Amino acid sequence: MDQLLAFALEGIGEITEGTDLGEVIREVSAGTLRDGDILVVSSKIFSKAEGRLVRSEDREEAITRETVRVVATRTHPGGVTRIVENRNGIIAAAAGVDTSNTAAGTVLLLPLDPDASARRLCRSLRASTGLRLGVIMADTLGRPWRQGQTDAAIGAAGVQVLEDLRGTRDRSGHLLKASVPAVGDEIAAAADLIKGKAEGVPVAVVRGLSRFVVDDADLDTTPGAASLVRPAAEDMFRQGSEEAYAAGYAAGLAARPAGD
Amino acid sequence: MDQLLAFALEGIGEITEGTDLGEVIREVSAGTLRDGDILVVSSKIFSKAEGRLVRSEDREEAITRETVRVVATRTHPGGVTRIVENRNGIIAAAAGVDTSNTAAGTVLLLPLDPDASARRLCRSLRASTGLRLGVIMADTLGRPWRQGQTDAAIGAAGVQVLEDLRGTRDRSGHLLKASVPAVGDEIAAAADLIKGKAEGVPVAVVRGLSRFVVDDADLDTTPGAASLVRPAAEDMFRQGSEEAYAAGYAAGLAARPAGD
Repeated sequence: MDQLLAFALEGIGEITEGTDLGEVIREVSAGTLRDGDILVVSSKIFSKAEGRLVRSEDREEAITRETVRVVATRTHPGGVTRIVENRNGIIAAAAGVDTSNTAAGTVLLLPLDPDASARRLCRSLRASTGLRLGVIMADTLGRPWRQGQTDAAIGAAGVQVLEDLRGTRDRSGHLLKASVPAVGDEIAAAADLIKGKAEGVPVAVVRGLSRFVVDDADLDTTPGAASLVRPAAEDMFRQGSEEAYAAGYAAGLAARPAGD
Repeated sequence: MDQLLAFALEGIGEITEGTDLGEVIREVSAGTLRDGDILVVSSKIFSKAEGRLVRSEDREEAITRETVRVVATRTHPGGVTRIVENRNGIIAAAAGVDTSNTAAGTVLLLPLDPDASARRLCRSLRASTGLRLGVIMADTLGRPWRQGQTDAAIGAAGVQVLEDLRGTRDRSGHLLKASVPAVGDEIAAAADLIKGKAEGVPVAVVRGLSRFVVDDADLDTTPGAASLVRPAAEDMFRQGSEEAYAAGYAAGLAARPAGD
């Protein structure tokens, strides 16, 4: 019977700049990992290992520096929420800038190139274990329209993140026209259920999905989590409704018919 | 060690109007279910059991009838995609109207009240098994900004769908200010990984999350999946960018200063 198993990898200590994540994970997972396993790793420990914990007295200023494009801004009693796009095309509140779990006067920024970070870790773990493993870098994202947050894949290596079923047929023989499950995000979500927020468990193992894990020869050609970012031209929600309305209003006001 | 296990419930045959889902699931799951298990059930079989397979030669017309509000429309080479809100506040492409797996000339509509449907099934299964079980009705939804689809909870009973961690502290003692994992959606996503689209397996069991499953006494007071719908006033993406821009443009054009 097909089944999915997810469990936390216990025993990972504090990660600081320069920590070799591959080495740490290999040590705590000795004898645990199996061929086809997918490791779901919090972006937070990649960030720490890569020295992305930076001094900043001003969180808002740090967010501005990480922002490529402002998508929407909202003022509420607790302050201002900025939904922005970062250099990797990830759209997130506060550009993923994190101040939980960091010392006062510091902020934790997302890795510069999450797919590259995942690829390095994947190669390291494959080399040291001899196993065909996948790596997903997970971060917690809010969603338009829906309450709460889910974990999603912002980096990936060694594992397919989209399962393109278009052109295949279902059990009744009907053509599946639009089915492209975002399995990378679903795997990150499944792992979040056992990692928990408060416990601070940064790595989970997801087992039973080896069909999505690729061979060594395909590591470089398998698209990473960047392929989960919808291209701008296909994005119907590229701006917040208020921002788009305001831009339209200004353009309408400026476009008065000749002769007025 | 905490772990999550998900597996498909095999042996569910064709569901037609009037099928007692509770009876079918009890039969195929005899001896399999344990206290605290969560059943993730495709909306499709609820719809079929509830007679929501209706004659309609015109899928577009059926979508219009299911629509409370148009969020965004996009024309592309394959036709028109309409992102709309339905009577339950669910925002989905084509209002969740389904023509895969249905006979020609028919369309499958979503259940009228997904939380009520989930509650009926949950009560039935709890009564027949004597186990504390949760039920999530899953449907496949697209997402702004991200490619592909993930399964989400559009109905729920007997299980918490949001884990409100605001006000609790993480391992380092930091206050979690905004953390509200949408566990209902994450559970639906995890189940989708083993259900698969092409195989047509409509029910999965998710085990290891009994902390989210509520006692019988709390069945009626635990919020269903309706609580996963973001209230309009807090929704920054209530309209597609083009639609909001066009509305603003028209308003700007109409708001020419007096004297023009």
